[in-house]
Amino acid sequence: MSNYAAIMPALERIEIQDAGEPVAGPRDAIVQIEAVGVCGSDTAYFTVGRIGDWVVDGPIILGHECAGQVIAIGAEVTGVSVGDRVAIEPGKPCRDCRECMAGRYHLCPDLVFFATPPHGGSLVQRMAIDERQLFPIPAHMSYEEGALCEPLSVGIWACHRAHLEAGDRVLVTGAGPVGLLAAQAARAFGAGEVTVTDVADFRLGLARDLGFAVEKAGEGTSRDFDVLLECSGAPNALADGLWRLRANGRAAMVGMPKQDVSLALSRLNVNELTISLVNRYSHTWPMAIELVASGRVDVASLVTHRFPLDQAADAILLAKHVPDSVKAIISPQRLSGA
Amino acid sequence: MSNYAAIMPALERIEIQDAGEPVAGPRDAIVQIEAVGVCGSDTAYFTVGRIGDWVVDGPIILGHECAGQVIAIGAEVTGVSVGDRVAIEPGKPCRDCRECMAGRYHLCPDLVFFATPPHGGSLVQRMAIDERQLFPIPAHMSYEEGALCEPLSVGIWACHRAHLEAGDRVLVTGAGPVGLLAAQAARAFGAGEVTVTDVADFRLGLARDLGFAVEKAGEGTSRDFDVLLECSGAPNALADGLWRLRANGRAAMVGMPKQDVSLALSRLNVNELTISLVNRYSHTWPMAIELVASGRVDVASLVTHRFPLDQAADAILLAKHVPDSVKAIISPQRLSGA
Amino acid sequence: MSNYAAIMPALERIEIQDAGEPVAGPRDAIVQIEAVGVCGSDTAYFTVGRIGDWVVDGPIILGHECAGQVIAIGAEVTGVSVGDRVAIEPGKPCRDCRECMAGRYHLCPDLVFFATPPHGGSLVQRMAIDERQLFPIPAHMSYEEGALCEPLSVGIWACHRAHLEAGDRVLVTGAGPVGLLAAQAARAFGAGEVTVTDVADFRLGLARDLGFAVEKAGEGTSRDFDVLLECSGAPNALADGLWRLRANGRAAMVGMPKQDVSLALSRLNVNELTISLVNRYSHTWPMAIELVASGRVDVASLVTHRFPLDQAADAILLAKHVPDSVKAIISPQRLSGA
Amino acid sequence: MSNYAAIMPALERIEIQDAGEPVAGPRDAIVQIEAVGVCGSDTAYFTVGRIGDWVVDGPIILGHECAGQVIAIGAEVTGVSVGDRVAIEPGKPCRDCRECMAGRYHLCPDLVFFATPPHGGSLVQRMAIDERQLFPIPAHMSYEEGALCEPLSVGIWACHRAHLEAGDRVLVTGAGPVGLLAAQAARAFGAGEVTVTDVADFRLGLARDLGFAVEKAGEGTSRDFDVLLECSGAPNALADGLWRLRANGRAAMVGMPKQDVSLALSRLNVNELTISLVNRYSHTWPMAIELVASGRVDVASLVTHRFPLDQAADAILLAKHVPDSVKAIISPQRLSGA
Repeated sequence: MSNYAAIMPALERIEIQDAGEPVAGPRDAIVQIEAVGVCGSDTAYFTVGRIGDWVVDGPIILGHECAGQVIAIGAEVTGVSVGDRVAIEPGKPCRDCRECMAGRYHLCPDLVFFATPPHGGSLVQRMAIDERQLFPIPAHMSYEEGALCEPLSVGIWACHRAHLEAGDRVLVTGAGPVGLLAAQAARAFGAGEVTVTDVADFRLGLARDLGFAVEKAGEGTSRDFDVLLECSGAPNALADGLWRLRANGRAAMVGMPKQDVSLALSRLNVNELTISLVNRYSHTWPMAIELVASGRVDVASLVTHRFPLDQAADAILLAKHVPDSVKAIISPQRLSGA
Repeated sequence: MSNYAAIMPALERIEIQDAGEPVAGPRDAIVQIEAVGVCGSDTAYFTVGRIGDWVVDGPIILGHECAGQVIAIGAEVTGVSVGDRVAIEPGKPCRDCRECMAGRYHLCPDLVFFATPPHGGSLVQRMAIDERQLFPIPAHMSYEEGALCEPLSVGIWACHRAHLEAGDRVLVTGAGPVGLLAAQAARAFGAGEVTVTDVADFRLGLARDLGFAVEKAGEGTSRDFDVLLECSGAPNALADGLWRLRANGRAAMVGMPKQDVSLALSRLNVNELTISLVNRYSHTWPMAIELVASGRVDVASLVTHRFPLDQAADAILLAKHVPDSVKAIISPQRLSGA
Repeated sequence: MSNYAAIMPALERIEIQDAGEPVAGPRDAIVQIEAVGVCGSDTAYFTVGRIGDWVVDGPIILGHECAGQVIAIGAEVTGVSVGDRVAIEPGKPCRDCRECMAGRYHLCPDLVFFATPPHGGSLVQRMAIDERQLFPIPAHMSYEEGALCEPLSVGIWACHRAHLEAGDRVLVTGAGPVGLLAAQAARAFGAGEVTVTDVADFRLGLARDLGFAVEKAGEGTSRDFDVLLECSGAPNALADGLWRLRANGRAAMVGMPKQDVSLALSRLNVNELTISLVNRYSHTWPMAIELVASGRVDVASLVTHRFPLDQAADAILLAKHVPDSVKAIISPQRLSGA
Repeated sequence: MSNYAAIMPALERIEIQDAGEPVAGPRDAIVQIEAVGVCGSDTAYFTVGRIGDWVVDGPIILGHECAGQVIAIGAEVTGVSVGDRVAIEPGKPCRDCRECMAGRYHLCPDLVFFATPPHGGSLVQRMAIDERQLFPIPAHMSYEEGALCEPLSVGIWACHRAHLEAGDRVLVTGAGPVGLLAAQAARAFGAGEVTVTDVADFRLGLARDLGFAVEKAGEGTSRDFDVLLECSGAPNALADGLWRLRANGRAAMVGMPKQDVSLALSRLNVNELTISLVNRYSHTWPMAIELVASGRVDVASLVTHRFPLDQAADAILLAKHVPDSVKAIISPQRLSGA
């Protein structure tokens, strides 16, 4: 039986190849991947071949927002069973280093992370995955919802990093998938009013539909936010967002600006702000599943486009070609044969 | 009896004038000012007439690092007595607003702070001061030590803002008075090794004499610090210091860069740093006095030059004229008559 | 015009008397009280005349859960206007002491609190209240809902004291008004599953209707809770609840046991629990109003009985006579004339 | 070559037997044990055979406060070298479970801890120990000082659990080894005045010699402490210590009372105390070594008695026979031959 994967042999190319049957180690499960969300980092690797110090230097399989079904387990697996439907955490820490033992496994220098060179990702039909990266989801949650626990985890972690407290007034800059999920996470943490900004009316409309106050980027002037969740990566949004925090304000930097960012620290210090950088997440999957399963966070409505495995390139480039899109989902088990 | 003050009528000028006898409100004490330390902000107002949004627009009395003796008290004063020797906190909050009630009185929008326009400072022989700004010091502490509880407070607060924990490895950039006191505060908080950097060998020598590891600015390369206390205001020092923090590192920005600062946030986010801006201090005087009185912090050795009141201008310009100086102290009760 | 109050001249007695017209100080508003919830402390003062060290030693007006309408304001009032409908915080701190300035005004030793001897409460038609105790509520919130922001504040503060984090599994022991509101506050803070226990089936039914898992007190055995909110005051519930916390569990003690409590600390220490005592609340009204106004917390369904002012005694004794009751509301503007 | 151990075959008996040569796993080092401190838990197992749920049910080797020299290393060891002098952390966590990954490895349910049934301890000449439990000490630190990093770790962790902040006023109840080290740890964390209480004048004298304020147990009446470190295990000391905390006070329970403890929670709640239970420590060895090596904590002066391996029983019973003793050290490499 073939195990098709969408392999990227070179920039802007995807080929469907048989990746060979995965072999489960003693604590691995074989997971049939059912849904893979496309992330901006996939698009960056596909079009530019690098993000910061991570450089693609050979064929690679993209995709790290994923969910699927357990179809086999290794000899020592106890946490999942064959048949379990699971959301998948794409990072595997060493569980031994200073960072892992300090409770910060996401900062493990030996973290093996899906679709981050040189490690392959989840645009494949079957993978061997450590059971500790697998989190069963209830029957009423779809695989797409399971896959989107990954970007939701980014939003949850941003709230942690911003020390968001119940009652805080929150400004979210950027209404892409991460911004919309961070805003929902903030609400789930008990935030007071949550305001979302973006340059695009389409995305502001989505934010409004989810129940948030919205503002066109750069047009808001109130300066009474407790927390900024910067999810756009736009230097202007960061500078403006920091300016709008009140005394003791806290900011989490989720969006990754492509260039250095210039900050007016000597003016911002009057409000004694705290700026927290963000690098993925840790310990978030149980909460992400709980929030989706209980209906407190709506991830499903972010899915605007769906693709079979052999149209992965179209999915990965969707945001470039269709501005009014939010989240593309690829189904590795589907092949259009086109 | 005259009450001489060093008044700044215009940029780079000081005149000795009689300020008139101070009148104590019911909760004020009249304090005979015995020692006033010169701060970089005094020098800035004296030479440039502004710091950020605070602009000198009339004659002003500079000086906010001060100590003295209580010589009279208002009708409702209960916290100090005539004869008490006191360290003086130069800020008076409203005690009523959101920030005051949240425990952050230093961020009170109505804070009245010595020598910050339009409020006058302590280069005067006698002042009326709210008793809640007065902290008795023991007999074995000098007035100079009492005055330097103010810059020590900056160092203590920087440690709070950096969430410095016992055992942390600390990098202090800048070995001026604030840097040397922040380094000592860090040690008093239980820091592990504390490393101090500066461009000037003279100041590095002072740091070494106080028992710290030292490095010429820009020459160190180790990247294993938990905490950065940026006390130089130099953009290079900030960028370099942030780069040298390890995972989960925390930085407090004490030095005030004159221009905007460019930060490589997209590289720094790998270590998930937290950057805390700093605006003065709150609740620090009891601890500052305790640290000085117990000998755990040495403020006295920072005093390199002393001046009578009528040579205040020389004192304020000392750092410009004598590079190998640290802290100038002005004695308002002394007049050279020169 | 008379200003009727329900005065308690002696144990178990209420008399309706004219309290005289209230006089507004410069920062006071005159509030027409529209709804007053009955609290267990009212019942204790009414039947026993004391709670701990607070002893009733003269006629007193009970009632501290209240809301009303501003009908006049003092000369310096800026925060509320005539006509505003307001929820009322019953405590007035000195805004000057160490606790107030540390952000903990609820621990102010000079706190003036409604219906805590020797201070009178809100079972009166009109009161002068400091504007800083008044929080406008939106038009769609009822006065009853405004009054119940007080017990909701207890629940919110319990979550703070327990350092409740989003995703935590929470056990609430006691399904009286405070327990039901603490459980809802926990959910609003992002708690995962919330389980409520009680001895009474009636109250468990209310908890179930609000969407919580329920257990008969003493019958549950799972030991995987992160947080305990003890709201029953029953020593058994506390001991059992602590036992059911997992490693690093946190407990907030809201219920006040009448006698000393015996704890098996040497067994509990294996899980390194943290036990936080609770004394009312601070800074909670804005969030309480937000939670009620947005529908995230349902306080209205707790109101099972309503009384005019002259039946205050029946209201205060309701829980003793009608076990299947939750919250009684007294309307000071209504007099049955019976 | 024989590898003598002090084996406890039955209550109150020690026999010297050859334990056989230890075998190093790939990440183990063979450590020649040079110093072992006696802890109250050793005495409890020796005389009673149990502590809480841990029951001695066969021959066991006691001793867990230890240091020694690395004399061989396994194939994969990289952290220590032959010849290193090391302080030894006696617990080995699984590094895989929820608690380990949350940064709380000391709460790992599978923790293997020296001299806690069924695991053997360090009263033996040579042991195989995981390299991650070994912390090199500088040449000027003695093995005795290395061994006492273990009880010092208890004191450090107590300060963490009490959220001790620089400037806090601290009350330490109990001036045994743990109390004297907790007091010194508190001072190293930047505590303000530290007061130590005990029933015994001898131990109060030791506390005084270390620079602390002292009080006979039960005689102090001031109520202005921020932090209580309860190190006596005496229920009276706990009750009294909690009573003496001021508003927002924090207590860490280090001493283990033998029976249940009765607490007046309904009176203590006025001050809104936080009571933290304590179960050993985690992440403390680097700081403990730093504090001893820098001279900030004096562990050496606690050593009042020394014994060869074959007099281990006398060492273990020392506290019962010689009230004016503090810490006994056993040298496994010495045999009296008596």
